[in-house]
Amino acid sequence: MTVRPEESLDPESWDEFRSHSHQVVDELFDWLRTVRERPVWQPVPEEVRAALRRPLPVEGRGLEASWDEFRRSVLPYPWGNVHPRFWGWVNGIGSPSGALAELATAIINTNAGGGHQAAPYVEEQVIDWCKTMVGFPSDASGVLVTGGSVANLVALAAARDAGDPRICEEGLVALGGSPVLYASAQTHNSVDKAARLLGLGQRALRSVPVDPEFRIDLQALERAIAGDRAAGRRPFCVVGNAGTVNTGAIDDLAALAELCKRERLWFHVDGAFGALAALSDRLRPLVAGMERADSIAFDLHKWLHMPYDVGCVLVRDREAHRRPFATKASYLAREARGAAPNDHDPGTLGPELSREFRGLKVWMLLQEHGVAKYARLIEQNVEQAKYLAELVREHAELEVMAPVPLNVVCLRYVGKKGEGRRGKGEELDALNREVLIRIQERGIAVPSATSLNGRFAIRVAITNHRSRLDDFDLFVAAIADLGRELSAPV
Amino acid sequence: MTVRPEESLDPESWDEFRSHSHQVVDELFDWLRTVRERPVWQPVPEEVRAALRRPLPVEGRGLEASWDEFRRSVLPYPWGNVHPRFWGWVNGIGSPSGALAELATAIINTNAGGGHQAAPYVEEQVIDWCKTMVGFPSDASGVLVTGGSVANLVALAAARDAGDPRICEEGLVALGGSPVLYASAQTHNSVDKAARLLGLGQRALRSVPVDPEFRIDLQALERAIAGDRAAGRRPFCVVGNAGTVNTGAIDDLAALAELCKRERLWFHVDGAFGALAALSDRLRPLVAGMERADSIAFDLHKWLHMPYDVGCVLVRDREAHRRPFATKASYLAREARGAAPNDHDPGTLGPELSREFRGLKVWMLLQEHGVAKYARLIEQNVEQAKYLAELVREHAELEVMAPVPLNVVCLRYVGKKGEGRRGKGEELDALNREVLIRIQERGIAVPSATSLNGRFAIRVAITNHRSRLDDFDLFVAAIADLGRELSAPV
Repeated sequence: MTVRPEESLDPESWDEFRSHSHQVVDELFDWLRTVRERPVWQPVPEEVRAALRRPLPVEGRGLEASWDEFRRSVLPYPWGNVHPRFWGWVNGIGSPSGALAELATAIINTNAGGGHQAAPYVEEQVIDWCKTMVGFPSDASGVLVTGGSVANLVALAAARDAGDPRICEEGLVALGGSPVLYASAQTHNSVDKAARLLGLGQRALRSVPVDPEFRIDLQALERAIAGDRAAGRRPFCVVGNAGTVNTGAIDDLAALAELCKRERLWFHVDGAFGALAALSDRLRPLVAGMERADSIAFDLHKWLHMPYDVGCVLVRDREAHRRPFATKASYLAREARGAAPNDHDPGTLGPELSREFRGLKVWMLLQEHGVAKYARLIEQNVEQAKYLAELVREHAELEVMAPVPLNVVCLRYVGKKGEGRRGKGEELDALNREVLIRIQERGIAVPSATSLNGRFAIRVAITNHRSRLDDFDLFVAAIADLGRELSAPV
Repeated sequence: MTVRPEESLDPESWDEFRSHSHQVVDELFDWLRTVRERPVWQPVPEEVRAALRRPLPVEGRGLEASWDEFRRSVLPYPWGNVHPRFWGWVNGIGSPSGALAELATAIINTNAGGGHQAAPYVEEQVIDWCKTMVGFPSDASGVLVTGGSVANLVALAAARDAGDPRICEEGLVALGGSPVLYASAQTHNSVDKAARLLGLGQRALRSVPVDPEFRIDLQALERAIAGDRAAGRRPFCVVGNAGTVNTGAIDDLAALAELCKRERLWFHVDGAFGALAALSDRLRPLVAGMERADSIAFDLHKWLHMPYDVGCVLVRDREAHRRPFATKASYLAREARGAAPNDHDPGTLGPELSREFRGLKVWMLLQEHGVAKYARLIEQNVEQAKYLAELVREHAELEVMAPVPLNVVCLRYVGKKGEGRRGKGEELDALNREVLIRIQERGIAVPSATSLNGRFAIRVAITNHRSRLDDFDLFVAAIADLGRELSAPV
């Protein structure tokens, strides 16, 4: 038996590694400290994209060379979501101490999929704190996942199998009975993805119309349920929204809780960002009823700004949560002593097994800042949304396109009233699409787009602890300038 | 409109933050540098667990206090997988430069779920490199996920819907036809979880017997398929193993590829760790046939030691990969210009949307070390497994319980030959369970347990770039000492 001189991935010189690490720590935190001085976003140039089409490196180029590549090809071209004027889609922006917590996570590099170690206890603690944050009972079950999409998947799997506990053993085909679930037309596409993945099919998801405030139409929902029952199908779940992605609309969650109780349906709340409005005494009434749900999905990397990625799903019924996921495996046998998995076993509560210790950053940052501060930051964003909406309403050339119940403002350029609007319908859509793209291309701000009642909307979703009122003044002026510039006669 | 003085999560003093960050960087890398001097593992004491049952912190305690809590309650109680004598389950151990790459990831904190930014291009690059590593064609599809479990889920979703493309729209109930998939009895439980989650049900997964080398019995597989077809069920997929978790067994992948082609079945390979044997010229013949699969799932946080978490799934047919996941959403509309999602859109290739930029560390570390070094480290572990098996075989009181084709050695204490074995059957199982737990409790080493042909086995899975031959000498001596100590007459 001959074994070559053994090698490892540890540095040959720890001293050199140490000085490299100090240098990149300074460089990276300086980059973050000065983010406001740079454009929010810039396109990835073709030469950089070409540099990202190289063959697999056979021989290593060393630590410095790999960091140089990072400085050249990656660091200048982020999505922009750490910048104070990034308000696209719904993104959190992280924080400096969050990044340090991630360094700790990667150095201890624990596999948090189970086992007797600190990680599962820390994550149980975080999950208990999550229950407190959204008003769930302390004996509920929960697990940390990568984000709202997987959280919705886990909750809907539990709902599916609670509807008929034989499904996970015998499968949907054997059992028949056409299970159906309901959600408003404004619901996030992860619910569509879950319906497809779970074998229910896209058609099993009824897309229920919304009222003028983009909330689920309760009467239409009741009619749909009655219709499906009459047709011999089997309604099993209603998804309520605590903050839709398009407009931040919040369904009447108390009414949905009541309806689900009456109809004996699983009540799931997708609260990706909106659930955390419950942290604020002032905003909590908006999400009243959420605490009566059978399950809640929400992100911690959005409105709590934990570094990507971490989300949470809570399920009231512990057994229902475990049912789709708990399988036996000889190599995962539990033991009362030693390093083996014990009762704290996240692998039985979601699709993952081996995974990052993603609860550590949440645990450290909630201790550092306290939840009262996060509540203030959420209120700050909601107030900023109201401020922006007011600026837009008062502006002669802009209009607000939807109510602003929370932190999302949909707006567009329409031209001066009284001077004849700058086009209608598709023309106005095209104009606003170009306004949006240019404001991104000029690095001024990154809002995103959506479609409301068939019309193109510039959408500002404020989940950003770095935004200041001035940023919205600047943004509104830039939108109006661009609108004028683009609609001027050539 | 009144808005309070605005606050953020940025430090009040960047200078103080900077000195804190230097301090923790030194502390954490020192902890890693000296890992060999500490016990592999120790239990989490009850007083620490009690400290992890506190109420949600309302007011913050500051950065220093949160790090003090980390030092007290977390750092001393990891699972141990960064230690040179951790060989439990299958865990990677990370690396110092991997941890720095994670810091960079968290500081730029890009949401890598899509959008025009460096992240999707970097991840496409990493996926292309993954194709090269396992011999897949360059036009295949792929996505980075949290690990092998989700990778298997994604591949089996694609397989399910390729079997009948109407499933994701219309659901399994509407279509009927009892789809069936096949995998050996030694297959990882994530395949069971996927069958349940996808609505196929546990029963749709046929557990095929294995031969004495723990590889799938091909004749039994063919009989099972024929039987299901005769009964009117619809076989759609065979899962082959490239490295089982119990013994590292590798199914005859070339024969499975041939069989799947003949039977028109989707051929999926679970290569969680074993797929990367393909990096080594010497080991590649073991996984021959894998490159003919329709899909492959494997981890990058195991045998490539990328920090947790990152895994990869490759799917030969691009359309089949997208089918279960690609849905439309107005707020995710693609644009040719600006920051919006474009054709590089990982959200249409798996269950996630918002997520960590988990490809960055892979891209940086493959450039730093080069794939030739990773190949040598994999060979090193395989040679260490042969070395350990030889030590055990030559030892008068120990026995090897299964062939050692790769990096897993299953063994037990049996007592001196000729002196009458120290008990049989359940007695021997109980003795070896106690040996295993004590070797963990004493901090000497962390192997894990499994069951082979109904007998308790101490299982050593070597995916560890810090292990040295001496570590195995020490381990074998300790196992024999403990066996003797525990089986001595009282």
